[in-house]
Amino acid sequence: MSQTSRRSVFFISDGTGISAETLGLNLLAHFPGVEFHQVRMPFIDSVEKAHACVPTILKAAQDDGMRPILLMTFVNEEVSAEFDGVQALCLDFFKTFIGPLGQELGMQPTRGIGQGRKVVDNTGYRHRMEAVNYSLEHDDGASERHLSDAEVILVGVSRSGKTPTSLYLAMQFGVKAANYPLIPEDFERGCLPKVLEGHKKKLFGLTIRPERLHEIRTERRPDSRYAALENCRHEVRQAEQLMHREGIRWLDSTTRSVEEIATKVMQECGLDGHVS
Amino acid sequence: MSQTSRRSVFFISDGTGISAETLGLNLLAHFPGVEFHQVRMPFIDSVEKAHACVPTILKAAQDDGMRPILLMTFVNEEVSAEFDGVQALCLDFFKTFIGPLGQELGMQPTRGIGQGRKVVDNTGYRHRMEAVNYSLEHDDGASERHLSDAEVILVGVSRSGKTPTSLYLAMQFGVKAANYPLIPEDFERGCLPKVLEGHKKKLFGLTIRPERLHEIRTERRPDSRYAALENCRHEVRQAEQLMHREGIRWLDSTTRSVEEIATKVMQECGLDGHVS
Repeated sequence: MSQTSRRSVFFISDGTGISAETLGLNLLAHFPGVEFHQVRMPFIDSVEKAHACVPTILKAAQDDGMRPILLMTFVNEEVSAEFDGVQALCLDFFKTFIGPLGQELGMQPTRGIGQGRKVVDNTGYRHRMEAVNYSLEHDDGASERHLSDAEVILVGVSRSGKTPTSLYLAMQFGVKAANYPLIPEDFERGCLPKVLEGHKKKLFGLTIRPERLHEIRTERRPDSRYAALENCRHEVRQAEQLMHREGIRWLDSTTRSVEEIATKVMQECGLDGHVS
Repeated sequence: MSQTSRRSVFFISDGTGISAETLGLNLLAHFPGVEFHQVRMPFIDSVEKAHACVPTILKAAQDDGMRPILLMTFVNEEVSAEFDGVQALCLDFFKTFIGPLGQELGMQPTRGIGQGRKVVDNTGYRHRMEAVNYSLEHDDGASERHLSDAEVILVGVSRSGKTPTSLYLAMQFGVKAANYPLIPEDFERGCLPKVLEGHKKKLFGLTIRPERLHEIRTERRPDSRYAALENCRHEVRQAEQLMHREGIRWLDSTTRSVEEIATKVMQECGLDGHVS
């Protein structure tokens, strides 16, 4: 098989299909030689809708000259059965595991669609949305009120990755994450911003390679002092010295995704114990 | 088995474990009678670290009086083998599917950890982070510049769910989502804010039940006119009339999770075709 073969992949679900896509993308990433053409088909919650998907799948098979891959999470077996006859590799993430799980627990699974995060009235969900609002209000030092409610306060120079990380912590994990910039004034004074002093245990630092920081800042403000490589070097060095002196745990965000950084922060700050 | 039995569940991975948790929570949600005690164990990327997890798992088994459930995504088989001897139900989401997938593709999987979203230099990842920045800058009508870059512009009354939805669209799907509030002035004028006029095709409305809106607004500004049920009823009715008149597609966010709303928006706006 050639190294640049093309395969069509369909994420199909009677719910959002986000589980299928999250796990699916991770699986596909282990085959970097293949060019995957990926299509989402969410909310396929009736036999009719399933039936209507089939021509698109067959068309892809024809275009690729190979059978497509269907990555599925179906609660409704009657609907998923519509795909049984299709010439494709069908991997159903729910069907595979729900049986063994039910057997282990000694009970039948309920068959409501999208049970996962559908129930917006449950505490876990409201908690996540509150965390998102909190993180937005406490982005970039925007509000100093209620900092004591934060579960973690990210610090670092401008554009070191604090904002996406705090939003991801809130959205995925329901963690109230504030973030606070370290600016030249802090380095001159040689100490943390006063407002952070009472919260030292909750601080977590992000740093970044100056070369990458220069790139990111240049996209936003080309040819500025802010973006200049020399200034980036200076700021990063000062920030790292400050964090070191103050005993703040920190992490280099340069080669890490927001998912990885957020998960590391959870682990380092001991927020992993209980999943909400 | 009693309806309120307790089971410990561990999400274990040599990467972030986010795939294991996303799919795992969906699976567990089909057994609402069980109280699951959930623990994350990410970045278990050596035999030593795996070994160090075992006492915690055994302790949970002892406390529950039942064997725990391990939901795993391991790239490194040598590490995952450390859990083989443990008295637990082990479901390995990678191992189960990577074999059939490799066979279908006619190739061996690469064995790099966290391939999925680790590579922060790839276009897909940068695209997602750009979308997050874009959505933040265009939250709540904050910036009217570059609205033409938006792939979708969410409109609706204050607190109808626009902000979390636009952030989720950006973070999960890499979609540049702006959002723009509909305010009493718009209703009095009886037409859309001028700045939106050139972008009608990209508009998507969110509405919400007045009773729920009243609850949400009351949490933020108790006893205000803003939060009053009568005012919420008026604003929602006016917003729905405006959207109807202007031919804007819309959705009721009241009983839907942010994942569902975002996925629906993708589908309705035809953004599903190709996964970045």
